[in-house]
Amino acid sequence: MSQTPYRVDVPLRWSDMDAYGHVNNVQFLRLLEDARVTAFEQWFGQGRSLLEEGVVVARHEIEYLAPLDFRHAPIGVDMWVTNISGASFDLAYELRDPEEVGTTLYARAETTLVAYDFATVSPRRLRPDERAALKALAGEPVPFRWRVRTS
Amino acid sequence: MSQTPYRVDVPLRWSDMDAYGHVNNVQFLRLLEDARVTAFEQWFGQGRSLLEEGVVVARHEIEYLAPLDFRHAPIGVDMWVTNISGASFDLAYELRDPEEVGTTLYARAETTLVAYDFATVSPRRLRPDERAALKALAGEPVPFRWRVRTS
Amino acid sequence: MSQTPYRVDVPLRWSDMDAYGHVNNVQFLRLLEDARVTAFEQWFGQGRSLLEEGVVVARHEIEYLAPLDFRHAPIGVDMWVTNISGASFDLAYELRDPEEVGTTLYARAETTLVAYDFATVSPRRLRPDERAALKALAGEPVPFRWRVRTS
Amino acid sequence: MSQTPYRVDVPLRWSDMDAYGHVNNVQFLRLLEDARVTAFEQWFGQGRSLLEEGVVVARHEIEYLAPLDFRHAPIGVDMWVTNISGASFDLAYELRDPEEVGTTLYARAETTLVAYDFATVSPRRLRPDERAALKALAGEPVPFRWRVRTS
Repeated sequence: MSQTPYRVDVPLRWSDMDAYGHVNNVQFLRLLEDARVTAFEQWFGQGRSLLEEGVVVARHEIEYLAPLDFRHAPIGVDMWVTNISGASFDLAYELRDPEEVGTTLYARAETTLVAYDFATVSPRRLRPDERAALKALAGEPVPFRWRVRTS
Repeated sequence: MSQTPYRVDVPLRWSDMDAYGHVNNVQFLRLLEDARVTAFEQWFGQGRSLLEEGVVVARHEIEYLAPLDFRHAPIGVDMWVTNISGASFDLAYELRDPEEVGTTLYARAETTLVAYDFATVSPRRLRPDERAALKALAGEPVPFRWRVRTS
Repeated sequence: MSQTPYRVDVPLRWSDMDAYGHVNNVQFLRLLEDARVTAFEQWFGQGRSLLEEGVVVARHEIEYLAPLDFRHAPIGVDMWVTNISGASFDLAYELRDPEEVGTTLYARAETTLVAYDFATVSPRRLRPDERAALKALAGEPVPFRWRVRTS
Repeated sequence: MSQTPYRVDVPLRWSDMDAYGHVNNVQFLRLLEDARVTAFEQWFGQGRSLLEEGVVVARHEIEYLAPLDFRHAPIGVDMWVTNISGASFDLAYELRDPEEVGTTLYARAETTLVAYDFATVSPRRLRPDERAALKALAGEPVPFRWRVRTS
């Protein structure tokens, strides 16, 4: 689909670098967490419906395409939705330079998130308003390259 | 294959918990990093051959199966090798309670690692001694459950 | 002195919170690190003279005055210089709400930084241009409250 | 006083290193947090009396004496109590090599901790059993070197 992804710019920290002098591979997932927190508030409202009271991470998949060094410019995180089922959805990401900085694509990733009812400690169905918000963000599958090679 | 996986016990930190009071999903990858650092020194020797001078992370995949709370007992990380190609290999993990603590399986994961020559800034072929060490750790594919559902 | 401090706004991350749901006390030091990295580039130039090639942290002191919760608004870090000697200087900080957010003062801190020559692995004297930059930022001692009580 | 300090060994993580290749100065405070969590459970019991339900960090002071590199051996954290008042106490630390590793002293630090009643959101007096546990750990003031120079 020709959906335009949702962009969140996430600032780096000097401490995101590891002893190799590059942003550490685990910190990429940390940057995605921050992008989600910002995006979910925009998508689902400040009542924290899906953000803090009702979603758990079930799965991550990430491919690293280029080394990222610390700089003061943020990293752009493009997000879209690749799958919606009864109680879960898949969120895709591309981490890339903001336009004014460059054109490098650093990583592709995908997270499976499960709607959760912390009161009953069990998954719950996505509500109609949540499904509507997610459908508006639907896009194509993530073109992972390594998964094919390793399966 | 009936290979016995290689076990490394990794201590948790109180700060691995996030605002939900559970070990944060990103910190699971941090625990895997520590397990790799310890294991690679055992597998490839202290000369840091593959550990610090010659390997980059190309890909992670992880599925979360049970919430993990901070405790003083370490988490057991079982590791085995699921694929070996010319310049890369796939490392599988299961994070589980040590026997004396319980029987919970918290997560399954897989990392693709590429042998790298930092002098020429390019991938390099695995050396025969590295291939031999990896072959001795060969095991079955990771039984990921979510990948099937989302593909 | 009535020096106006140098202000750097530092974004928070959701992961700065610990299991209590507040920004963790150790993460306050992480925020100060980020403020220094940004400020040093402004004060000493992008050649990284003092920033990355020539300064080590010798000491931190910090007092916590109010709990800080995660929010999308950054934290304002006011910085000034409280002491300059031959090879070191003291940097003072106050962490407070940006004007448009509130008036809370969250912490006061001070860091002793030593100019360092990594080539000779030893402290070095501050250069005249570095001293001039620091003198322009000179201000009053940090009004620590707990130090008096505990000494 | 000739009190023998309480020793907790804290494992390092590879990720404690920053881009300089040394354990980052902020991570030293993280190691102290872990040492406190372990020690408080020993000192005050697993009922989490002071550990998780009733203490907040009011102040840190730390001096760095030697660079610490990542290694598989843990860092030894010696702890003792330097001050006890109605609602707070000061905890001193020295971070040093375990005996079998070496004799380097890496840092000295001190934390002021305030007993806190989260139900009433206010400081509370130390209980007699808490005071007794702390008195048994009483020791001499921390011989900070930089504080004198900077005051």
